[in-house]
Amino acid sequence: METMPNWLHKRAYMTPDRIAIVENQNEWTYRDLQRSSLRMANGLKKRGVRKGHHVGFLMANGIETVLCLHALMYIGAVIVPLNFRLTSAELRYQITDAELSFLITDTTYIGKATEAIIETEVSLLTWDRVEPGEDLSEGLQTTIALNQLHTIMYTSGTTGKPKGVMLTYGNHWWSAISSSLNLGLDVSDRWLSAVPMYHMSGLSILLRSVIYGITTVVHSHFDPKAVNESIHKDGVTIVSVVSAMLKRMLDELGSAHYPETFRCMLLGGGPAPYPLLSTCQEKQIPVYQTFGMTETASQIVTLSPEYMLSKQGSAGKALFPSELRIMEDGKEVEAFQHGEIIVKGPTITSGYYNLENEGDSFINGWFHTGDQGYLDDEGFLFVLDRRKDLIISGGENIYPAEIEAALLDHENILDAGVTSIREEEWGEVPVAYVVRKAEHVSEQELLTFLSERLARYKLPKRITFLDELPRNGANKLQRRLLGVKR
Amino acid sequence: METMPNWLHKRAYMTPDRIAIVENQNEWTYRDLQRSSLRMANGLKKRGVRKGHHVGFLMANGIETVLCLHALMYIGAVIVPLNFRLTSAELRYQITDAELSFLITDTTYIGKATEAIIETEVSLLTWDRVEPGEDLSEGLQTTIALNQLHTIMYTSGTTGKPKGVMLTYGNHWWSAISSSLNLGLDVSDRWLSAVPMYHMSGLSILLRSVIYGITTVVHSHFDPKAVNESIHKDGVTIVSVVSAMLKRMLDELGSAHYPETFRCMLLGGGPAPYPLLSTCQEKQIPVYQTFGMTETASQIVTLSPEYMLSKQGSAGKALFPSELRIMEDGKEVEAFQHGEIIVKGPTITSGYYNLENEGDSFINGWFHTGDQGYLDDEGFLFVLDRRKDLIISGGENIYPAEIEAALLDHENILDAGVTSIREEEWGEVPVAYVVRKAEHVSEQELLTFLSERLARYKLPKRITFLDELPRNGANKLQRRLLGVKR
Repeated sequence: METMPNWLHKRAYMTPDRIAIVENQNEWTYRDLQRSSLRMANGLKKRGVRKGHHVGFLMANGIETVLCLHALMYIGAVIVPLNFRLTSAELRYQITDAELSFLITDTTYIGKATEAIIETEVSLLTWDRVEPGEDLSEGLQTTIALNQLHTIMYTSGTTGKPKGVMLTYGNHWWSAISSSLNLGLDVSDRWLSAVPMYHMSGLSILLRSVIYGITTVVHSHFDPKAVNESIHKDGVTIVSVVSAMLKRMLDELGSAHYPETFRCMLLGGGPAPYPLLSTCQEKQIPVYQTFGMTETASQIVTLSPEYMLSKQGSAGKALFPSELRIMEDGKEVEAFQHGEIIVKGPTITSGYYNLENEGDSFINGWFHTGDQGYLDDEGFLFVLDRRKDLIISGGENIYPAEIEAALLDHENILDAGVTSIREEEWGEVPVAYVVRKAEHVSEQELLTFLSERLARYKLPKRITFLDELPRNGANKLQRRLLGVKR
Repeated sequence: METMPNWLHKRAYMTPDRIAIVENQNEWTYRDLQRSSLRMANGLKKRGVRKGHHVGFLMANGIETVLCLHALMYIGAVIVPLNFRLTSAELRYQITDAELSFLITDTTYIGKATEAIIETEVSLLTWDRVEPGEDLSEGLQTTIALNQLHTIMYTSGTTGKPKGVMLTYGNHWWSAISSSLNLGLDVSDRWLSAVPMYHMSGLSILLRSVIYGITTVVHSHFDPKAVNESIHKDGVTIVSVVSAMLKRMLDELGSAHYPETFRCMLLGGGPAPYPLLSTCQEKQIPVYQTFGMTETASQIVTLSPEYMLSKQGSAGKALFPSELRIMEDGKEVEAFQHGEIIVKGPTITSGYYNLENEGDSFINGWFHTGDQGYLDDEGFLFVLDRRKDLIISGGENIYPAEIEAALLDHENILDAGVTSIREEEWGEVPVAYVVRKAEHVSEQELLTFLSERLARYKLPKRITFLDELPRNGANKLQRRLLGVKR
């Protein structure tokens, strides 16, 4: 199996009249979506975008982003989704690393985009100003190859530098198929997306909806009240959430219930707290806990419906074509023994862009996630800790090393260590510990300094000044001891 | 994507407690199915069956055949399903052509099997006498490769000799996925199989059920009353039928209706008569017309639910990863123009076993079906005629050339031609026209002669004696003129 029809092209041919997108009061059929995507693809071609070009998008969640994605797929460009919460400096790093030819932005983010491409050779295109062409598919990519690169998506790295995860059409295709073999597939499904389209969670909804021929209900941002209302009035059957979102939805829902047709609350982004799951159980909300990451093109382990109650807190079992093991010291461990979660399957990235030396995460086809967990005696996965030191704040991944690196850029900082504290609303938030030079520098001064370099959600909730940081004999920072009284 | 877990192995790991098989009053969970299959795999191994061996089965439809299939997959043997309606002579041809090492049979067909392997080196195993081993997977195939040969399945050839269609794990996998993207997939689905397991139709139900994690309701043979009752009492949601079966089911159903949970009557095996479809429409039976063949690992074109009424009589559009065209004189034709149906996609066979020279059916990845049809202006396929001269009798394919060859084997037959007549119960039945030598031979004598060589369903309904057969200038038999008064 090497090629198949372009997904939107095939879907619009099979079921042109089905509703593809609902956004606010507006509906787009697959025919509408195809026509507009074709027009924008031809428009982008006129502006010089070509097959194989790396093209970033820095756009608000919405129909424009959906059209942009499909237009780029029709052209055969490699899509580089960019997180609009990043600073211009952070964006510039990714834009440069991914070797973008074009950056597509919208009126909301034009300022940040303009700043981000300074001193680069990237051409900036504003979506509104791209003149649509004809809705013809000639010269466009109506057939795709499964091993063709589809996305380079950045994920913060343990080393402090974001890494570009390369995902093929095949990775996304198999992710969609794997999910359907677990969640089932109803042609009348409506999947609500209030998660960012620049993230795996949002992107995967858009891609699988086209493959399935179902409807995506697009929310530009997460508002718990709007989501709850939409579940009722838009006939939503599936929602993708992280714990922090789900908690706010339940708070807002109060004593009300979701309709019976609502069949799946797909819960990712790290282990969920028990009280939250219990509340869902009481309210008969069908929660499917999942485990996955950008490198696995979204969920790779999901709890099957029949075990929702009996295995509460488990992330489930590896999806159909994938496999899962727990390894410690190079050996597979027994049930209930802790170790690193390793996974294998057709959704897993072939590697990071321009980072050959990250190959030690990929051994004999197995991807070493860096996350800790164990399997029970029936093979159900319980995730203990996400990747060493990873902080998950409201679904966004934050690596301490990245914040530490930014702090060390300040001329008055000698040493820096970052860890996290639990927090009600976002799950976790980062906190920093720093060693100053003799010269004085205040917490506020440091925060201002960081805010130019790091997205707001990465800013430490507080900065504590210490005389020295806990380091082991090899001078390695002991992040677990930060904030611990000794 | 090269490998994935063995399907039953993975399914039993994911959802061991789901019901895999219902047969009469008996139920098998996926755990049961796995354990019994493992035991039989180890039992067969002890009898010498090895990975890569070609192993035929000549068994009645039932749980034993299901176990046999999974045991052979666990071993990694190539499965050669044999039609128990064939004569020993017909079977011997396929057994020899497929280079079987083993033939597995049951108490019902032991006589026919014993006769079939005379003068071959095939080892005969009787299912009941294979002693089960332990239910351990060590040394068995818990991982499969998608390009691994799974089946050699015989289909009658236009040349009079059956051809062994080679199908890989990947062909079957993609067939299951393609179907689910069209019909949807509900974890509570129950698929009734009253079609032969040695046929693509029956085999595909067994394989896709394991991939989906749904239940197969097994009927050993087709009895319209039993099927109608089973739809009600076993909670059946999907049934695979051919027109002749559906007609008898409707006759038996009378004024009654199927329950609302029954969601799909998958209708294959040739174009369906309009009156039949109209009756289904009146009775609100959701009929999905399909087009497919052994070479495409079952359906490759299916009518999507929303077009069931507006495109009555159409076989629909090519399933998601597949493509469809109409060709005439080497060129793709316009809408409504007739031509040969050609298809492309991941379910299509790589070819026939030991028949390199049949390669002209496969051109640039496109399989030329030999069937005639046209597309309407929205791309819906209407099948006009199955492969040149193909007779479809109650869902079984019959090639005139095969019957003609058998007739010509008789010492008193000079020439023979076979065509078909429409018939109420089976759709079509073969009729023969022969030229005798001077010496007398009766119709009854010829039928007795044929019945030793041909399966009962292939026997001509009548044999007409002529002085000569219609042949064209190149002396080619004009089958269309047989029976036409000139």
